[in-house]
Amino acid sequence: MLEGRQVKVGILGATGTVGQRFISLLGSHPFFVVHALGASSRSAGKPYEQAVKWKLSTPIPQSTRSIIVSECKPEFFAECAVVFSGLDADVAGEIELAFRAAELAVFSNSKNHRRDPDVPLIVPLVNPPHLGIIPQQRSLHNPPLKKGFIVTNANCSTTGFVIPLAALEKAFGPIEACMITTMQAISGAGYPGVASLDIFDNVVPYISGEEEKMQWEALKILGGLTPGTSNADGNHPKKFDMHAAHPLRISASCNRVPVIDGHTMTVSIRFVRRPPPSAQQVREALAAYSTEALVLGCPSAPTEAIHVHDDSQPDRPQPRLDREYQAGAGVSVGRVRECAVLDVKFVVLVNNVCIGAATSSIINAELAIAKGVIAL
Amino acid sequence: MLEGRQVKVGILGATGTVGQRFISLLGSHPFFVVHALGASSRSAGKPYEQAVKWKLSTPIPQSTRSIIVSECKPEFFAECAVVFSGLDADVAGEIELAFRAAELAVFSNSKNHRRDPDVPLIVPLVNPPHLGIIPQQRSLHNPPLKKGFIVTNANCSTTGFVIPLAALEKAFGPIEACMITTMQAISGAGYPGVASLDIFDNVVPYISGEEEKMQWEALKILGGLTPGTSNADGNHPKKFDMHAAHPLRISASCNRVPVIDGHTMTVSIRFVRRPPPSAQQVREALAAYSTEALVLGCPSAPTEAIHVHDDSQPDRPQPRLDREYQAGAGVSVGRVRECAVLDVKFVVLVNNVCIGAATSSIINAELAIAKGVIAL
Amino acid sequence: MLEGRQVKVGILGATGTVGQRFISLLGSHPFFVVHALGASSRSAGKPYEQAVKWKLSTPIPQSTRSIIVSECKPEFFAECAVVFSGLDADVAGEIELAFRAAELAVFSNSKNHRRDPDVPLIVPLVNPPHLGIIPQQRSLHNPPLKKGFIVTNANCSTTGFVIPLAALEKAFGPIEACMITTMQAISGAGYPGVASLDIFDNVVPYISGEEEKMQWEALKILGGLTPGTSNADGNHPKKFDMHAAHPLRISASCNRVPVIDGHTMTVSIRFVRRPPPSAQQVREALAAYSTEALVLGCPSAPTEAIHVHDDSQPDRPQPRLDREYQAGAGVSVGRVRECAVLDVKFVVLVNNVCIGAATSSIINAELAIAKGVIAL
Amino acid sequence: MLEGRQVKVGILGATGTVGQRFISLLGSHPFFVVHALGASSRSAGKPYEQAVKWKLSTPIPQSTRSIIVSECKPEFFAECAVVFSGLDADVAGEIELAFRAAELAVFSNSKNHRRDPDVPLIVPLVNPPHLGIIPQQRSLHNPPLKKGFIVTNANCSTTGFVIPLAALEKAFGPIEACMITTMQAISGAGYPGVASLDIFDNVVPYISGEEEKMQWEALKILGGLTPGTSNADGNHPKKFDMHAAHPLRISASCNRVPVIDGHTMTVSIRFVRRPPPSAQQVREALAAYSTEALVLGCPSAPTEAIHVHDDSQPDRPQPRLDREYQAGAGVSVGRVRECAVLDVKFVVLVNNVCIGAATSSIINAELAIAKGVIAL
Repeated sequence: MLEGRQVKVGILGATGTVGQRFISLLGSHPFFVVHALGASSRSAGKPYEQAVKWKLSTPIPQSTRSIIVSECKPEFFAECAVVFSGLDADVAGEIELAFRAAELAVFSNSKNHRRDPDVPLIVPLVNPPHLGIIPQQRSLHNPPLKKGFIVTNANCSTTGFVIPLAALEKAFGPIEACMITTMQAISGAGYPGVASLDIFDNVVPYISGEEEKMQWEALKILGGLTPGTSNADGNHPKKFDMHAAHPLRISASCNRVPVIDGHTMTVSIRFVRRPPPSAQQVREALAAYSTEALVLGCPSAPTEAIHVHDDSQPDRPQPRLDREYQAGAGVSVGRVRECAVLDVKFVVLVNNVCIGAATSSIINAELAIAKGVIAL
Repeated sequence: MLEGRQVKVGILGATGTVGQRFISLLGSHPFFVVHALGASSRSAGKPYEQAVKWKLSTPIPQSTRSIIVSECKPEFFAECAVVFSGLDADVAGEIELAFRAAELAVFSNSKNHRRDPDVPLIVPLVNPPHLGIIPQQRSLHNPPLKKGFIVTNANCSTTGFVIPLAALEKAFGPIEACMITTMQAISGAGYPGVASLDIFDNVVPYISGEEEKMQWEALKILGGLTPGTSNADGNHPKKFDMHAAHPLRISASCNRVPVIDGHTMTVSIRFVRRPPPSAQQVREALAAYSTEALVLGCPSAPTEAIHVHDDSQPDRPQPRLDREYQAGAGVSVGRVRECAVLDVKFVVLVNNVCIGAATSSIINAELAIAKGVIAL
Repeated sequence: MLEGRQVKVGILGATGTVGQRFISLLGSHPFFVVHALGASSRSAGKPYEQAVKWKLSTPIPQSTRSIIVSECKPEFFAECAVVFSGLDADVAGEIELAFRAAELAVFSNSKNHRRDPDVPLIVPLVNPPHLGIIPQQRSLHNPPLKKGFIVTNANCSTTGFVIPLAALEKAFGPIEACMITTMQAISGAGYPGVASLDIFDNVVPYISGEEEKMQWEALKILGGLTPGTSNADGNHPKKFDMHAAHPLRISASCNRVPVIDGHTMTVSIRFVRRPPPSAQQVREALAAYSTEALVLGCPSAPTEAIHVHDDSQPDRPQPRLDREYQAGAGVSVGRVRECAVLDVKFVVLVNNVCIGAATSSIINAELAIAKGVIAL
Repeated sequence: MLEGRQVKVGILGATGTVGQRFISLLGSHPFFVVHALGASSRSAGKPYEQAVKWKLSTPIPQSTRSIIVSECKPEFFAECAVVFSGLDADVAGEIELAFRAAELAVFSNSKNHRRDPDVPLIVPLVNPPHLGIIPQQRSLHNPPLKKGFIVTNANCSTTGFVIPLAALEKAFGPIEACMITTMQAISGAGYPGVASLDIFDNVVPYISGEEEKMQWEALKILGGLTPGTSNADGNHPKKFDMHAAHPLRISASCNRVPVIDGHTMTVSIRFVRRPPPSAQQVREALAAYSTEALVLGCPSAPTEAIHVHDDSQPDRPQPRLDREYQAGAGVSVGRVRECAVLDVKFVVLVNNVCIGAATSSIINAELAIAKGVIAL
């Protein structure tokens, strides 16, 4: 898509950990070109390479080093067709609203607007059709907008398990229950994040707010966007139904483990369908899952949305060996087997800093262009 | 119990990791005195401190340093009232049989005889009454034995979750389903065990045979020992019923994580009783659980079989902070809360090298003395 | 010493990492009794167990749990014969001065007053005679003091290498050059201290200010306290000579490594004496080193100031195996061998949170009592 | 060089850790094409992807997956212009001799032949002229060889410090003393290598034989190859002089630390030249160092042989942030400063699995082609 064209993008929170990941990933993007960088007033006015304490093992892309960092104000991003937000939650809410009001297209990795009724929460390998809410988001804005909108992507752990769940619901119909235990990497907590004294030689069986996020976000993502029904004042015709037709019970237990990148999860599910599919059928359905993002030619979409390790590799996926596969843009699933309590269980690995964060925002923006939500 | 007396004990596999733990724990025992040490022929004939590559941070107890290591043959252990076995599974089977046949009392940490129909599998904080099978074990031996027997203790992960399950079945009646995800320490794999290149910055979501052990052993431990019914030839009057009256479905997912000692588990359970007890009732029942080992005065039994962390400590238990509590002889439970899929879920921490291994054998031996199974 | 007596002590910075270590060590002290705890105004008024986020694997001593934390003001510590300070450097300076001015005996682990000309910098296994400056410290105070004073102990890395250096200077005369490379534990940076993302799977070859501290402090500790010479106004008769008679060149390279507790160092030295002692002579001199603290019966002093690993243990000392030896109150030395560039080299392990911090303050206080600097 | 041509290469020890690294690096090489893979008889006959337990995070190159592994016999490598050896030392000696005798060009990463008088020990960024010994190596072989030879590369730690030393000797003349303390990654010990129980939360201050290797190999590498002087029978005209004109004393202390890849070293040196160069001059000379490998167009040679971190980055290099720079083909140096004992000290980082191992062999082979030692 877009051969030879260049699309200017901006990054909010450019010096933070998510911002660094955006910059690193965009350094080799076929058409997105980093044009503006926003950070706190402390960094504003400096060349990026002086403003940032770079924490990635790949160097800062040459083209970004000397961009002068600005404050996170819409006027500095007016030329950007896309604005990626890696802002911390304590400031993201207001700034993203201001950018939308200024007719900018915001793709946010922050949690602030995920629960807004007209903001889509999109895992790009799962629910691109939810972009269909955007005309309504614009029209209900005061004043109505022509171009501005906010799209959010999901929490990193949510992203990891909804991708295989979507594949299985597509193949076998609704799931009624899902139990997940996560073993999450330290990078999920940002920087400085987890103190080394808290996590060396240790497991912390608690991540504040994480279980609730996983349980709520999955329903919005896996549920439908109800078609518009006309009502008296014509407002709110579309609604996210939160998987309403088939209530889905989700129980998550979240743990922090001494791993740098990559969240590993054990997942067990129960289908509505009786008898349920076999482990082998589940394995095949996961491997066969294809995504609209790939069909539409999104350049950051993985060829394999779900890489399935078969029984010859019973000890996979592992974060250190598998997190970089396809640049972290897909998920890996292994150990698909029957569950003595629910129906089927398996292990999922998601690269929390790639498809679990920045890569999702980037593919979401690619989807928005491919589907015409952003007009270039 | 046994004020002022001394009971001679032997240790098989004395130079291995479990053997070292036995020696360390027994160094300060009120009545067990290490008298004989068995190891491979390579070590036999050497003083212990030269034979062993000691891996614990506490020094070798002074009284054990100069004991001459012997081969694992019963004649060298004839004076021992108790023989602890920390042998590797590839040799434990035959050696333990030979020791039993030589009228020795064997307390084994190995897996080999756990499934024998007349060998009790005892978690000392759960099922001491299973020692009642021992007269039958002796009488069915060929030739019948007067003093010899084998008692096994459970796998470290099994031990961790059956203790709270026993507490809850005692309080609320049978459990019908249990899902567990473990995050297990590297010490559980022995030495050299896990290669550092396999587990640094990593999770390995597979431990060969571990899930099956947890699922099978729990049924033997939590189930009953059926009373003797007379039959034609009088054989096999007692049987372990494997929790038969209320089938208990257990689904375990085992993972290795970069932690030195201490297995952390997320556990979710469903009771038969409807409505099920509340999270608060579960919390109280866990904290109130008392053990026969403590009542009988076993010196290695923990005062609190289950230490419960309440809601003021939502991030506990943690292996590094909690594994040494009560010298690792109890388990810690935290985050007791409702489960959206089953009834109640919580986090368990078990010190895999203490109550999950050597400490269980030691308390089992204390129990056998207290209950008169071993006559001194 | 002091059989049956109790000496009330206070702890400043009681909720911090050094403060926690003081409380843990004092929980089983034969005569020091924790009487008062000082912390920030945020903690003041709460029972200790509620004020602290306890980070040690041993529980809070029972006797300390319910002590009400106060602010760090002298009036709350008036009954304390000894005040230990584990304050952060940003507040320690002023508070410790105020305590001294209030006639309290302050034993500080902070760096603030280490370079004061009348404040002794004491590694208790090295230079207790430097307590001889205290009368002068009191008399030069304005107004002169009767009881108040400040004693500091050294940086954890300094402590590690000056103990063997003192042993060798005692045996073989002055050292003229010393090169040290440290591999320091994360606990040396306090809490939250080192971010896990900075040190997992990593070495950080820089610790701000550490090399300078090691180079300067060692000279004050290993140097002499010149005898008083009368001068016109009678001031400043005694002075720390900074090893002046034999200039000692020290070159340190400090690194942070992924270890929880215990600083490991490679040390190479050149003696003034030609020919220098052999490796074997050095080994023997280190093992033979005895301390005044032990002779005077200080209960926290280690029996072996320097535990020497001989050639049968070429891979020792190691932090995880050796840091708890003698409760961390001594140092361990291994691999003593000739150096192709200087004379002799070896490896030192110091437990940075014990003899490298709180244990030094405690032995210093024991010494001050034993030598009559504190009158009870 | 060699535009458009393809050069067939073989790999001995293809399933081991060094072998895997060769395969990974060669997967994108401009002209080397993996043609034959040798391993033990246990692997022979299987497609590579079945024979190997792949341990790298990048996938097996597509072109190598289905190559059938053979035994390590010369007849299976007859078509290979270059044979890389990643064999373990216990078998490398004989096999490499057999390959040389079969007229094959062997580039070995093993230690076995490094000390052979006619085998060059080449760090490709330091001493390519030592390839000049090869005609002699061939002629002295019995029977004399036309094409076969062995070239070795150095130990990973040796490689790390001889590169900056070579740069400094080039700029400032001979160095007379060098002290090094290494902090070495676990990957340096191969697989399974270091047991996790030995290195978690630990430092092991000893690596068997490593210090001797560093001290001996550096002299061969940094020393000269004396020009041929005719003697009676014409044998041995050239000799490695082991830095004879200016004896170089090297003292190394080697430590294993919990890092996956990348050896960090503190290095301190004394020059013969008085006064010695300043830290700033040293910094400039290091940054200016250029290599024959780059001049000759070797595609795997780094653009910057030595990447110098200046004072704005006092905490660099760090293994996790810097080991992947230039695909690990150069070294990084930081913290160049004066030394109070010798002249100048600094920190070096070498990627032990790249330029410290496989990358060196590959550049050596590129050099051999560029210099005509291998005729294509």
